[in-house]
Amino acid sequence: MTSILNQHEDYQQAQEAYGFPLIIKQLLNRAKIASTDQTISYANKVTYTYAEFFKRVNRLANVLKNMGLQAGDVVAVMDWDSHRYLEAYFAVPMSGMILQTVNVRLAEDKVLYTINHAKPKALLLNAEFEPMAKNYRHEAPSIEKIVWLDDTGFDDAKYAGDDIKNDTKTEQVSMPDYVEGEYEAMLAAASDAFDFPDFDENTIATTFYTSGTTGDPKGVFFTHRQIVLQTLASTLASALNAEGQGARYNDVYMPMTPLFHVHAWCWPYGATMIGLKQVYPGRYLAPTLVDLIEQHKVTLSHGVPAILQMLLKEMAARGRKFEGLKLLLGGSKLNEGLAKAAIESGIEFMSGFGMSESCPVLSRAVFDDKTDSMEMKEQLNYRCLSGSPIMLVSMEIWDENGKALPMDGESTGELVIRAPWLTQSYFKNPDAGNELWRGGWMHTQDIACITSDGTLSITDRLKDVIKSGGEWVSSLEVETILSFHPSVADVAVIGVPHERWGECPLALVVLKPEYTDTKADDILALGHQAVEKGHLPKYGVPSEIKFLAEMPRTSVGKLDKKRMRIMCAEKLI
Amino acid sequence: MTSILNQHEDYQQAQEAYGFPLIIKQLLNRAKIASTDQTISYANKVTYTYAEFFKRVNRLANVLKNMGLQAGDVVAVMDWDSHRYLEAYFAVPMSGMILQTVNVRLAEDKVLYTINHAKPKALLLNAEFEPMAKNYRHEAPSIEKIVWLDDTGFDDAKYAGDDIKNDTKTEQVSMPDYVEGEYEAMLAAASDAFDFPDFDENTIATTFYTSGTTGDPKGVFFTHRQIVLQTLASTLASALNAEGQGARYNDVYMPMTPLFHVHAWCWPYGATMIGLKQVYPGRYLAPTLVDLIEQHKVTLSHGVPAILQMLLKEMAARGRKFEGLKLLLGGSKLNEGLAKAAIESGIEFMSGFGMSESCPVLSRAVFDDKTDSMEMKEQLNYRCLSGSPIMLVSMEIWDENGKALPMDGESTGELVIRAPWLTQSYFKNPDAGNELWRGGWMHTQDIACITSDGTLSITDRLKDVIKSGGEWVSSLEVETILSFHPSVADVAVIGVPHERWGECPLALVVLKPEYTDTKADDILALGHQAVEKGHLPKYGVPSEIKFLAEMPRTSVGKLDKKRMRIMCAEKLI
Repeated sequence: MTSILNQHEDYQQAQEAYGFPLIIKQLLNRAKIASTDQTISYANKVTYTYAEFFKRVNRLANVLKNMGLQAGDVVAVMDWDSHRYLEAYFAVPMSGMILQTVNVRLAEDKVLYTINHAKPKALLLNAEFEPMAKNYRHEAPSIEKIVWLDDTGFDDAKYAGDDIKNDTKTEQVSMPDYVEGEYEAMLAAASDAFDFPDFDENTIATTFYTSGTTGDPKGVFFTHRQIVLQTLASTLASALNAEGQGARYNDVYMPMTPLFHVHAWCWPYGATMIGLKQVYPGRYLAPTLVDLIEQHKVTLSHGVPAILQMLLKEMAARGRKFEGLKLLLGGSKLNEGLAKAAIESGIEFMSGFGMSESCPVLSRAVFDDKTDSMEMKEQLNYRCLSGSPIMLVSMEIWDENGKALPMDGESTGELVIRAPWLTQSYFKNPDAGNELWRGGWMHTQDIACITSDGTLSITDRLKDVIKSGGEWVSSLEVETILSFHPSVADVAVIGVPHERWGECPLALVVLKPEYTDTKADDILALGHQAVEKGHLPKYGVPSEIKFLAEMPRTSVGKLDKKRMRIMCAEKLI
Repeated sequence: MTSILNQHEDYQQAQEAYGFPLIIKQLLNRAKIASTDQTISYANKVTYTYAEFFKRVNRLANVLKNMGLQAGDVVAVMDWDSHRYLEAYFAVPMSGMILQTVNVRLAEDKVLYTINHAKPKALLLNAEFEPMAKNYRHEAPSIEKIVWLDDTGFDDAKYAGDDIKNDTKTEQVSMPDYVEGEYEAMLAAASDAFDFPDFDENTIATTFYTSGTTGDPKGVFFTHRQIVLQTLASTLASALNAEGQGARYNDVYMPMTPLFHVHAWCWPYGATMIGLKQVYPGRYLAPTLVDLIEQHKVTLSHGVPAILQMLLKEMAARGRKFEGLKLLLGGSKLNEGLAKAAIESGIEFMSGFGMSESCPVLSRAVFDDKTDSMEMKEQLNYRCLSGSPIMLVSMEIWDENGKALPMDGESTGELVIRAPWLTQSYFKNPDAGNELWRGGWMHTQDIACITSDGTLSITDRLKDVIKSGGEWVSSLEVETILSFHPSVADVAVIGVPHERWGECPLALVVLKPEYTDTKADDILALGHQAVEKGHLPKYGVPSEIKFLAEMPRTSVGKLDKKRMRIMCAEKLI
């Protein structure tokens, strides 16, 4: 017998009448009432209030509508991080359209592949990428409407750093005749009133492509509901951290993960939902980023370790330190050397884990009384792990047969997840989608263990795993050990074929400029010490070190181990 | 033309296969991995770990199942705040059943009314309320199974405060033969494994009754989805507050809004989701509450102003202060005198607004740089307002014609809301439900204005309810009771300010000419009789009676309570 409460007809009708879909426009509800005077800046070019932002979102929706676009159409954006991008984050999906955030740092043919694959009907195009778009136009494109974005209309005189101005300013490209018009002019001409409708929260809001390491980029996609839930849970996990280490109402936010990269981890949605003061930095150049952090007193940001490294180097060159900048880290694992340098430079960083397929945040470092009382060595170790699952996230560690292993800090296997914000497949690639979701859990292809207090330790990528003499070697562990050598600026460890052991680890190292005469054995000595202390098995010591001038990285700054393995195989290094 | 992304069949299939309903069991995901060693205490009687808690939730689900209960059945709880209640918060709705949180502080006939109306099939009954249940059993009850809850099995010797022990201990009532068994014994006998299924997130999870202003209590009900979303948004709004004033991972949580009162504002769900150390205080007695706060180093709680007043008085009597206890306030408006006393006593309080119909939290005070720099006078004023809307909440101020008024801190009208967690109607009372949702927005029946920075100021009740100690007193009901006295020609009951309870009822009476020598106590005796009979709560008896020659009425002959309140305030009567 089911309860009368569940059969209550009026309730069913009311549900339809008063239902409240989790759609992106609802993320604006609080800010529309509480943050109308708060400001949003595009570098030092433009600053306006949230009140103005809301009007501009309406104007952009009218521009899209006036161009004949309809719900379901894909609208692509090729831009650096700007106020325009933030406006598109809201206006496009709130119009029922799908926002394609094009990764402009991929190789040109990959960029064009992602556009040809998603088939956007309109493109918001930064002048800087016009050559790419021009090439695309020869291939029977889906794009019918192009809106021209450039920075020439802004008053650069307001901007303090002269050399930076030259850096950020692109060579003047005049507006081609095939575009609909210039963004600012089109917004100015459009009405600032728009009535965004309610619709099904399972409508797709965004799509973008994983840079992938093999084959063509794969498209992932997220619904309104997924983005709203990720935004709530991810901001909450960050806000609960102890004093000095959490997101707060008085933060000044600036992204340092590009807006084309997994929605900048949904923080532009989160910052707007909370009503924070926001700064969008344009293209990521170390001097610009540090200038903006200092001038706007930025307190909250996020990025990959490579960005952190860039910031530290720039600040060191200025002979100054950060003043407790809170930096959410992810993308790849931090090594303890970098962690120590960050702490010494006044950055409070919070590691986490996520991926393109997961919207992205799945775990975040927790700071509480326990972490507060940790000594430096223990703290460094903790801070280089990947935090614990954020609200609503389920995690398991599976062995090769899909059996869940205990969370004991020792058992290691593939991390699989369930959460309300995971891509449900790959776009037009159901086989890869089914593979991703084998057994009803999303496969991260990361090898991990979880401690009994829930801290996630990623030990390797499934495909980067080194298997030596039948045993796994954690490349991340070896990288961490070698990173402590004073001469090492950057280090990567990969597996290379070995006659006897199947595979053995090999290290690629970039030396700091002042240490170019360092010998391989000096660095490997750290590996041998680690073996003596029982921190590393004998077969974990690299067979060889190769020195490089620059570390091969993917477009999003991750170590490109696939390319490294090819370079080694083809004896290019 | 809709985009191919929206037509993507694999996506639709995947949605079904990999969907993730927002159901209460998902609130446990994080704690199950990250907080297994954290503890939950019932006063100083029981302390166990989350690992044990999860097992006990499974055991309780098995107890319910073994009693023959099924999804859709209503399970009522009559208990003070205990670990058992927390277990029921999860096990009952996670089993697909509906948790009825019975307000045991209502008059007995109202309690029985709410049970007869919701028709629970099972009741978890604290021994203390056995007399009430016994009476109910004479009325052809829906309840088939009763589980007996008492505190006699716990080792009270562990508890430090002797006098408090006597306070909290109820007179021993032996277990009646009509019950199924004793809670702890039944849990011990049940399996600690239970596989909670996924189901539709719009399934009703909880129901309870508003004490109402007129007539019978009205039932509200909330779905799993609504509770999950309220929990996320409400904890987030609290966590974002500035240093010293926000919810944190290192908080120790104890409720001081009863678990039968709007799910204790969903904080038992929130605290468990986050994985906080938790303390459940049993019945609210000032010495017990302060003892527990001091002994367990409680840092985070919530309550109505009357509870705050109780705490301050008790702590003052001990000659000590609180150490920055963070107290979320709501229920009725704080006055500045109490606010000042709270600050001086070391309590960081955060005002907010909500109601039974809204799950409940809709707004919460924001603390940021602006509030940090306020002087005391300004700060007191700010802290007595009701904060700003939390995430996802839409608010408007409507005039009598349903027109939205500007948010300028001056325009005053009825506060109407939209949010994802509002009751969709009143249970078996669709007319009242439709009235609640007039024009597609939920009507709070509160008169308010909102400043341009989004701070909500509740200025009045739309109707003339009286709120005493956080509970509503129905003036109509009190009027009806007093009107039975032979001397009374006309009677009106209004709320007047009361130092301890916020408000208390005061009666205005016009005597019949032949009874002009009637004394106030003669008439109040009817009130006391009604209390004894369980028709009126104690706080419903007017503090005072004022005699008038003529009753103030509006032009259409209705009682003019506004004018009455002014006359009282200005001491004209």
